[in-house]
Amino acid sequence: MGGGAVALAMALIVQKYGGTSVGDVDKIQGVAARVARYKKDGHHVAVVVSAMSGETNRLMSLGQQIGGEKPLPRELDVLLSSGEQVTIALLSMALTKLGLTAKSFLGDQIEVRTDSAHGKARIERMDTQKLRDCLELGTVPVVAGFQGVNAHGDITTLGRGGSDTSAVALAAALQADECEICTDVDGVYTADPRIINNARRLGQVTFEEMLELASLGSKVLHPRSVEFAGRYLVPLRVLSTFEDGPGTLITMEMDNMEQAVVSGIAHALDEAKITVSGVPDIPGIASKILGPIGRKNIEVDMILQNTGADGLTDFTFTVKRQDFADALTTLESVATAIDAREVNGDDAIAKVSIVGVGMRSHAGVATRMFDALAAENINIQMISTSEIKISVVVAERYMELAVRALHAEFGLQEDN
Amino acid sequence: MGGGAVALAMALIVQKYGGTSVGDVDKIQGVAARVARYKKDGHHVAVVVSAMSGETNRLMSLGQQIGGEKPLPRELDVLLSSGEQVTIALLSMALTKLGLTAKSFLGDQIEVRTDSAHGKARIERMDTQKLRDCLELGTVPVVAGFQGVNAHGDITTLGRGGSDTSAVALAAALQADECEICTDVDGVYTADPRIINNARRLGQVTFEEMLELASLGSKVLHPRSVEFAGRYLVPLRVLSTFEDGPGTLITMEMDNMEQAVVSGIAHALDEAKITVSGVPDIPGIASKILGPIGRKNIEVDMILQNTGADGLTDFTFTVKRQDFADALTTLESVATAIDAREVNGDDAIAKVSIVGVGMRSHAGVATRMFDALAAENINIQMISTSEIKISVVVAERYMELAVRALHAEFGLQEDN
Repeated sequence: MGGGAVALAMALIVQKYGGTSVGDVDKIQGVAARVARYKKDGHHVAVVVSAMSGETNRLMSLGQQIGGEKPLPRELDVLLSSGEQVTIALLSMALTKLGLTAKSFLGDQIEVRTDSAHGKARIERMDTQKLRDCLELGTVPVVAGFQGVNAHGDITTLGRGGSDTSAVALAAALQADECEICTDVDGVYTADPRIINNARRLGQVTFEEMLELASLGSKVLHPRSVEFAGRYLVPLRVLSTFEDGPGTLITMEMDNMEQAVVSGIAHALDEAKITVSGVPDIPGIASKILGPIGRKNIEVDMILQNTGADGLTDFTFTVKRQDFADALTTLESVATAIDAREVNGDDAIAKVSIVGVGMRSHAGVATRMFDALAAENINIQMISTSEIKISVVVAERYMELAVRALHAEFGLQEDN
Repeated sequence: MGGGAVALAMALIVQKYGGTSVGDVDKIQGVAARVARYKKDGHHVAVVVSAMSGETNRLMSLGQQIGGEKPLPRELDVLLSSGEQVTIALLSMALTKLGLTAKSFLGDQIEVRTDSAHGKARIERMDTQKLRDCLELGTVPVVAGFQGVNAHGDITTLGRGGSDTSAVALAAALQADECEICTDVDGVYTADPRIINNARRLGQVTFEEMLELASLGSKVLHPRSVEFAGRYLVPLRVLSTFEDGPGTLITMEMDNMEQAVVSGIAHALDEAKITVSGVPDIPGIASKILGPIGRKNIEVDMILQNTGADGLTDFTFTVKRQDFADALTTLESVATAIDAREVNGDDAIAKVSIVGVGMRSHAGVATRMFDALAAENINIQMISTSEIKISVVVAERYMELAVRALHAEFGLQEDN
């Protein structure tokens, strides 16, 4: 078998290739060769592809030149979805050139039904009959990721990470043995290898951990696709399009898993912090602050409220950096209305998180984390925890140092 | 009204914009402004667009890099049809920016049902209900030209001139008052203005004449669209996207028409001539020669057979230049089989034609044509006639001279 370590006999495998994997003609031919190896080994393969890298940005730029910052959502989806249409046709041709039979499918051709939230639609169901017919004949179905169709027959797109979600949904609907996310990295690492040069590739990781890692800034997989895979128990494997190797298998909790307390360190530089200070500490104040933010469709991540001694409180939360200016503007009038002392913002922050299912049963993990950061004189600005992760906000300039310190503290480096 | 000379009160107009008319963001915005003028004048407008100029070639090149000279037809159609998808989205955005409401439609969204001849599909029917709903609400439907969908739901494309055909089919189905073909020239001329600088724009021309002019090398309209318009009596107007003006109306024979004997001169440089000499003059010889050519899907245009005195005959026909080499190769074995003396080819030829419905009732037109060419010492290699046209094949180097001579002979120049 081409890339996987697990020798699945005659398995049904869904493979998703992202934009960099199909970035030019040569790479598309490489993907075709990779699919052919799986077919030769006797597997059934269904492929999901993204647009060629750069193409979605090119189309978006055209759309914005005409439609402004936020082009008409229905038409933007028509525009963007043309990118995947190009790739499915080219890959089907490349597969055919290698002697395989292949057939492309657009979202609407296999009725990838979504809701009508253009630009961030959610898949409701899909009709797999045509795909099953293909697979039975030995034909490789090549499906356009990222796109679907709503009840009115309008094209929708799934937003960031949409093709991953398409692949997982397809694997779930086809009850595939595995869903391979073929990308330009060879797996999920204990930390970003660009920061930690002895970061270790994880052989396995649980859906929950991957979800936290994905949400917390690990760019390998989009959280939606992980959530989807977890819900439908689709074994998900992240591996390299370009090199052989087992990658990282994302699955349920496993017996043979390295029982590390912490599986990985994630970091995110795409958030900004806003503090509303001197707010009267009365019920309903949080919703008065966050209500207007929510109505502007600005997503809030961490929320923190400290009670002060004088009946006043400081209210702090984080938003995506791209929404920072918008959020500040929105809060100006809110601050006046609720009689707050002042509104401060800081977008030079980083969120650093430790993730691990082992954390559940190990007390003192948080203390180890805070101690390790203190030892490096890194001031913690905010803390947020869940069952299997602890996140801290630190000044942006300390991000790398924090990741390195935590990677060492929890013994995540590669064994030498 | 923006461009038309005929003030149609509250008309339903289908407008088709070709690749050069939507070649970049500025031009798309210009098209939107043009549509807006028609809407402001109270007309209902439905728009059909091509891919941005250069886009179809770019996609075809990608397809050929992967799929070879003739990529998989089904997938090539998926690939190429993405070009129009981009344009309908962008134009809909541009219209919306101008305060209009607009909605894009792909071929399959309005069920432009075609046969399954990928790359040259023929439209069988379409469902106009969604378009009518749009028009009633004052919304401008923006339809992807060139594409349809077969009975299996596969995307098909209509081939060269496909968007013109889409527009005419749409106009027929909607029973539109007029179908405007908006392009980079301001109408149909008595001859190619690049050759004849005093060529005159025709105010009106009949479907039959236009069909001959289109078939004979006038690049303005594709013959299929003219044929379609003639069959469904869709008034067709060729006019400029970029300048105001009445263009040329293509319609039934008209009372107020300038009763010229000859309406226009067409020329074509895309043919090649093949002569099979010394063929036994026996029944069935034509099909023995042309049968293998037809089976290779090579289209034959003019056919000419002279009987010789010695029981042998020369058989001459023309094909498209792109098929010339293929046709010659095909004929090598045929020539041996039918015991022909030799096969000669010449691709340095031009076809020059005079076209006019007036010809029907005027004897001696052919003589005037031949005399005019003889006066310039131009040798005629082949002659072919129909009710409303006479075509001659001459050496390619005489093409311009021949067009000029005939343009003058039949008094087609602009009045000064």
